[in-house]
Amino acid sequence: MSKKQEPKILSVTDLSTSEAKWVSLKKVEFVDQTGTPRSWEIAVRKTTSKSGVDAVAMGNIFVHPSKPPATMLVIQYRPPIGKYTIEWPAGLIDEHETPEEAAIREMKEETGYKGKILDSSPAVASDPGLTNATLKLVMMEVQLKEEDDIMPDQKLDEGELIERVMVPLSELYDRLMKYAAQDKYMIAGKLFYFAAGVHFAKNSGYI
Amino acid sequence: MSKKQEPKILSVTDLSTSEAKWVSLKKVEFVDQTGTPRSWEIAVRKTTSKSGVDAVAMGNIFVHPSKPPATMLVIQYRPPIGKYTIEWPAGLIDEHETPEEAAIREMKEETGYKGKILDSSPAVASDPGLTNATLKLVMMEVQLKEEDDIMPDQKLDEGELIERVMVPLSELYDRLMKYAAQDKYMIAGKLFYFAAGVHFAKNSGYI
Repeated sequence: MSKKQEPKILSVTDLSTSEAKWVSLKKVEFVDQTGTPRSWEIAVRKTTSKSGVDAVAMGNIFVHPSKPPATMLVIQYRPPIGKYTIEWPAGLIDEHETPEEAAIREMKEETGYKGKILDSSPAVASDPGLTNATLKLVMMEVQLKEEDDIMPDQKLDEGELIERVMVPLSELYDRLMKYAAQDKYMIAGKLFYFAAGVHFAKNSGYI
Repeated sequence: MSKKQEPKILSVTDLSTSEAKWVSLKKVEFVDQTGTPRSWEIAVRKTTSKSGVDAVAMGNIFVHPSKPPATMLVIQYRPPIGKYTIEWPAGLIDEHETPEEAAIREMKEETGYKGKILDSSPAVASDPGLTNATLKLVMMEVQLKEEDDIMPDQKLDEGELIERVMVPLSELYDRLMKYAAQDKYMIAGKLFYFAAGVHFAKNSGYI
């Protein structure tokens, strides 16, 4: 990436639903369990795949013959937040793809590596008070050879500027906390929860 | 809760940004790292607390003298998804509250229990490709007495219908997978990621 400058937000303006290309607002009218009519406002992505799931995120493990297992995180400027986020590679599922096909494709595009799928989660709700968006967490393994120690080329879409960082799995939680302590970064919630789960299992004494 | 019927969605209609009360659409104009002007469409909550964080979720541990440590999950109908979601208790932070005050309040309202805060996470991004919404994961402990085996009253807001279920921490991942296998339920992504992190730490052999 030819990085000339820090990204800068120029303006944030109201957008009408009819002008929006990617996201719309909807009003859901429903009857609740007691028979009471209610309504709820939601944000809806205009892109949806035929699979019924919007997105995939790749929980990835890099296995190297002589180094500890590690995971590749991606760092990108996220205009909704106005900061760089730390996330696992992720992307929207194309219309005619399965979630697992999207996971292989997006992993290759964002990290440069071909991963092997270990496990694909049920569809889960991204932020169920706000949106109908769903995703699958696809766990992937990348087997490295002894000589693999460089970052292969990414195949990013036009306008995508994604930095990669490799973190030993045993250091994931601590590394996220260090990023979070810097004002220019914010951790993506789902990755943080995974790391918090690992940290809890290892350190809490409860489990 | 007087549950007479299953909730039912009657209609989903376009909502204009000017009519919406809780959510709006915004267009962010920004300049990226290469100096290229770009734009991004985002969903924004109209409610924001002075703390700069939108919401809290309570990762809770119930400790009992003679039972294994457990966590209380909440099940509620979520109109954006059209299903019942399985989540940790959570809520929006009121305007003049700290995140930690909101965590204590919401925990009491949704579970009926007063929790003690063990840890409060950095603000993390709820769904950073779609929205500016942020939250903190507040880990809480509730110390039960030998005789505590019933569910105390909740203090729900009008219209809130939330069921509670207590799950031993060691069974969290398997129990979530059982819910996910039923069409009427969907797991909230962040809770799933935490459980997946615990499961990964315990079973993957990588860490």
